[in-house]
Amino acid sequence: MNVLIIGVGLIGGSFALALRDRGLAERIEGVEASEEHARRALERGLVDRIVTLEEGLPSADLIVLATPVDTIPLLTVKILNRIAPHQVVMDTGSIKGELCEVVAMHARRGRFVATHPMWGTEYSGPDAASRGAFAGRTAVICERERSDRDAVETVERLYGALGMPLVSMEPEEHDLHTAYVSHISHITSFALALTVLEKEREEQHIFDLAGGGFESTVRLAKSAPRTWVPILLRNKYNVLDVLREHIHQLQIMRRMIERDDAEGLTAAMQRANAIQKILP
Amino acid sequence: MNVLIIGVGLIGGSFALALRDRGLAERIEGVEASEEHARRALERGLVDRIVTLEEGLPSADLIVLATPVDTIPLLTVKILNRIAPHQVVMDTGSIKGELCEVVAMHARRGRFVATHPMWGTEYSGPDAASRGAFAGRTAVICERERSDRDAVETVERLYGALGMPLVSMEPEEHDLHTAYVSHISHITSFALALTVLEKEREEQHIFDLAGGGFESTVRLAKSAPRTWVPILLRNKYNVLDVLREHIHQLQIMRRMIERDDAEGLTAAMQRANAIQKILP
Repeated sequence: MNVLIIGVGLIGGSFALALRDRGLAERIEGVEASEEHARRALERGLVDRIVTLEEGLPSADLIVLATPVDTIPLLTVKILNRIAPHQVVMDTGSIKGELCEVVAMHARRGRFVATHPMWGTEYSGPDAASRGAFAGRTAVICERERSDRDAVETVERLYGALGMPLVSMEPEEHDLHTAYVSHISHITSFALALTVLEKEREEQHIFDLAGGGFESTVRLAKSAPRTWVPILLRNKYNVLDVLREHIHQLQIMRRMIERDDAEGLTAAMQRANAIQKILP
Repeated sequence: MNVLIIGVGLIGGSFALALRDRGLAERIEGVEASEEHARRALERGLVDRIVTLEEGLPSADLIVLATPVDTIPLLTVKILNRIAPHQVVMDTGSIKGELCEVVAMHARRGRFVATHPMWGTEYSGPDAASRGAFAGRTAVICERERSDRDAVETVERLYGALGMPLVSMEPEEHDLHTAYVSHISHITSFALALTVLEKEREEQHIFDLAGGGFESTVRLAKSAPRTWVPILLRNKYNVLDVLREHIHQLQIMRRMIERDDAEGLTAAMQRANAIQKILP
């Protein structure tokens, strides 16, 4: 199978490595807007060639979109406009509602598979691409029944070969649940970094004391704005809903600390401990 | 050297393992209030014997307090009241201000070394004790000049042998900086778990989507209330100060999302990204 990856960064590059390591692609070409990223993707052997979309499209069996979420809907339409009937297009973006709405009435909707592999790190670009990504993580497929059977089978076979359990979701459902579970984590982590940078003027102290739990909680604050600003804004209402709840929970904890309410804090922490049963 | 560890849980147990693995202690005895923990500490070989404080104290060269922070000040005084001039007492607690205040005028203040090894996990009890803990993490020593020279040397030699860089801090300074860097991380993590458990009623979705960053951000929410309620309440004013700032930062992000302020969000995330330079 010949694969064309649009956007050879953290996700596109890791996907390329995974396909190659498992012998799932004969040829992998990449389209990459950044010259620097294109050079690094070639140097690291993530793709065989860097091509333009025009050059790469005709001979690709599978086209994978792995660009920031604000660019995906229009790009998907433009690519669908130009593919042949046997070609398959998939995306890997973190927002599915707008995308599925935009392609809904496209004459070639069936050739498209909307997906979200639930893997990522705080780093971005081709240098962040890593081997062994995706394995064991869930791959979400949205509007599975609106894609042609062979297109879904191609995508599911690849994700399956990468060791990813598959889950079907409606796009609205996906955007709601990822706001709850993934997007809010990024907001808290960015806000935590800003809090500590604001309060703690001595960087050496941050470094010395980071062993006390800070390091893992603040990890996501290293994430790229180019990736995360569009995600938060394109999932605005779900994100605001969960962010309001999070601020509310913090205010409750604040009041309990103000009142030396050890019993209330204990009960709240015990409720929070329930997360252990879900994520052992 | 004979070591007596009071509280054979995550910290006390890991400290015992580290001392033993490096051949730093001939005999390690433990005092443990929980029968179940005492049994597990023996089964895992963390200590040679479980003893009462009365039994263990006379023959110990070093007494290590590793109990919850609300119990440490009185326990330290009671132990100092009963030791011989050659014995050394140290603690490993997360709060230093109240403790140093309580022992300040004790006739045997010099035999005590106030320390905080900056290592921990979200788990507790003897089963959570692990090999290789502490290495590379900072050990904070407070009021170093108020401890006898030989006592400080004993403690610093042990931490040094465990591969821990040493840092001296005043107790107030320690409590301020740990509130900024460690305690706030626990609050945000507990509040994040409560937020997600409140909003996301379908546990399967939390499990499926946790790969999107949630898992690391919520890790600390598994921490024990018995450990963390006393830490937050005994560091109340510092904790409230940083918690107020954190809620403020979240409110700023909320307003930017409400207004589709991509530029503002980008600038905020770029500022947060600076944490990368401090914690690479």
